[in-house]
Amino acid sequence: MAQTFSFALHATDGAARLGTISTPRGEIRTPAFMPVGTAATVKAMLPESVAATGADILLGNTYHLMLRPGAERVARLGGLHKFMNWSKPILTDSGGFQVMSLAELRKLTEEGVAFRSHVDGSKHMLTPERSMEIQKLLGSDIVMAFDECPALPADESVVAESMRLSMRWAARSKAAFGDRPGHALFGIQQGGVTPELREESAKALTEIGFDGYAIGGLAVGEGQEAMFGVLDYAPAMLPADRPRYLMGVGKPDDIIGAVKRGVDMMDCVLPSRSGRTGQAWTRRGQVNIKNARHADDPRPLDAACTCPACSNYSRAYLHHVFRSGEIIASMLLTWHNLHYYQELMAGMRDAIATGDFAGFEARFHSLRAEGDIDPL
Amino acid sequence: MAQTFSFALHATDGAARLGTISTPRGEIRTPAFMPVGTAATVKAMLPESVAATGADILLGNTYHLMLRPGAERVARLGGLHKFMNWSKPILTDSGGFQVMSLAELRKLTEEGVAFRSHVDGSKHMLTPERSMEIQKLLGSDIVMAFDECPALPADESVVAESMRLSMRWAARSKAAFGDRPGHALFGIQQGGVTPELREESAKALTEIGFDGYAIGGLAVGEGQEAMFGVLDYAPAMLPADRPRYLMGVGKPDDIIGAVKRGVDMMDCVLPSRSGRTGQAWTRRGQVNIKNARHADDPRPLDAACTCPACSNYSRAYLHHVFRSGEIIASMLLTWHNLHYYQELMAGMRDAIATGDFAGFEARFHSLRAEGDIDPL
Repeated sequence: MAQTFSFALHATDGAARLGTISTPRGEIRTPAFMPVGTAATVKAMLPESVAATGADILLGNTYHLMLRPGAERVARLGGLHKFMNWSKPILTDSGGFQVMSLAELRKLTEEGVAFRSHVDGSKHMLTPERSMEIQKLLGSDIVMAFDECPALPADESVVAESMRLSMRWAARSKAAFGDRPGHALFGIQQGGVTPELREESAKALTEIGFDGYAIGGLAVGEGQEAMFGVLDYAPAMLPADRPRYLMGVGKPDDIIGAVKRGVDMMDCVLPSRSGRTGQAWTRRGQVNIKNARHADDPRPLDAACTCPACSNYSRAYLHHVFRSGEIIASMLLTWHNLHYYQELMAGMRDAIATGDFAGFEARFHSLRAEGDIDPL
Repeated sequence: MAQTFSFALHATDGAARLGTISTPRGEIRTPAFMPVGTAATVKAMLPESVAATGADILLGNTYHLMLRPGAERVARLGGLHKFMNWSKPILTDSGGFQVMSLAELRKLTEEGVAFRSHVDGSKHMLTPERSMEIQKLLGSDIVMAFDECPALPADESVVAESMRLSMRWAARSKAAFGDRPGHALFGIQQGGVTPELREESAKALTEIGFDGYAIGGLAVGEGQEAMFGVLDYAPAMLPADRPRYLMGVGKPDDIIGAVKRGVDMMDCVLPSRSGRTGQAWTRRGQVNIKNARHADDPRPLDAACTCPACSNYSRAYLHHVFRSGEIIASMLLTWHNLHYYQELMAGMRDAIATGDFAGFEARFHSLRAEGDIDPL
């Protein structure tokens, strides 16, 4: 195992990059998709099952964990890895995004964000310094700088002011993080959909110096076209020798478009959340298992998929257990979706290695165009 | 694999019996506890995990499955084993008990029970003949005769009348079941807490002739003392060379008391239902994981337990995920409880084999008396 955090770039295909992040807790093959384990669990999955899908790293949410069970408690219990029985790397977000979207009675100042917990109404304050402290208490391998992120669309002046605050917070985050060998701190680029602001943000972050760089402020309502518009230029503003992480993305075609544009890491609740609402993602597109047409269908969700849901169960069974409100429906559909997402990442990594990313993308879209069930 | 259904008695210790039921789908070690897979799933468990706890057989509920997804549909899809991915034996109840406790607008006649579905209000009729047909469509390995069971306490005349109706239905069940090599039909003794009625019922069933005999009409509100009172004499009324099945029992001490009195098979929703409500069963008694005293406890539920919940997680983690409403809480606690129940059965089988059932029972009660956590 590596003793320090490092990133090695193995191959590129256009802007798409194949690499490996090395950490003391294991290697992360990039492009990487990180399942979200908000409250110290990837919902409806055992961690060994998450690992079996091919995930090299999980994301944990600072905001949720600081409120329940509490960062100091997790630290007393040996850290988040031990607490949730996941020995591979964990990335934690800074809490900045979620405090603005979930907390009550938020008050934003230069110092940070004061708020009340959505769980029990208790008062809290998140600052760059406290965010660094919490992420350290959790034992996170990849720590995110504390930032603020306005919902889009927003006035450019609002976006600019918010970005500059985030850059001041980024500097405070770096100072508070200090020197922690084996642990990485990522800065977060902001600036909305304005190239000049993205450039200003990238320069500020590079000057501070981070182990990796996230592209923040996307997937917040701007739509895929606008997001890809930013991704056409934003990744190249960030140092090529550090991993680039697009936060909160996304659907399979969002992910392919992001990797194509030079993104190395992504996270999203979509595969797990979809699993719990009866939506399955397959190489042929989205399947709504609630639909009555599945009630008598003996075929698996996807005949080409090797996950337990597809290997052992029919669409009819998945339909039945979902309609009956059975927990196994969430378990199997989440497992399938996470498996599919990891297969998608593996397929892209193989395609970049062989210089066939364009072919991969073309096959992805052509199979989807055929419809959600294999021809008989 | 056996081609036919058979029961071999290996040892006895007092009234307690050690045996093996052989079926074409595998052997069932008795005394056996059958987890309940009501709607074609043991709630919050994958079937391979249920098997890993040591379960040799599952119970499926005819009433639930006939309403959703429907017995004919399950048959078209290849039967219940294939549908739910469980290759070992399945016992199905007759639907008689649950139609009386769950269905709406029930009408009981000599012919059977007419009712409306609690799921969608649709009209149905269950008779001995239809119950046999449904259980055959499901592909059940052990089929239960259709019976009627009054809640206790009830007037003796009501119990007697009900028992005699059940005996007429038992004869019709046997005739409708016919000859199905490899599949077993069990009769169900009724008669409440009245020895003379239990004797009359046993004689009627033995005359008809079944592959096994259930003791019905208990665990319906009479209390453990009254139940044990019946079990002091009822098992001996049934043929010694056939398995005896006590329906719907119970808590660990109920199960030990039943095995001590000559019962070979039991089923109960308790371990799985308890898991979903935060109740864990351990060799030291019942643990309510919701309780705040677990919030900082780094110890496992039971240090001597080898289940995944105890091997990989602290009480603090289980407390956290239960309080947070996370699905993994149900998954882990159900797994633990089913594992504990199967360990209990294995312990009793070992004790009967070595003639130490009394010692086993004494150790069970003495450990419980010490409290729910190992001394530090």
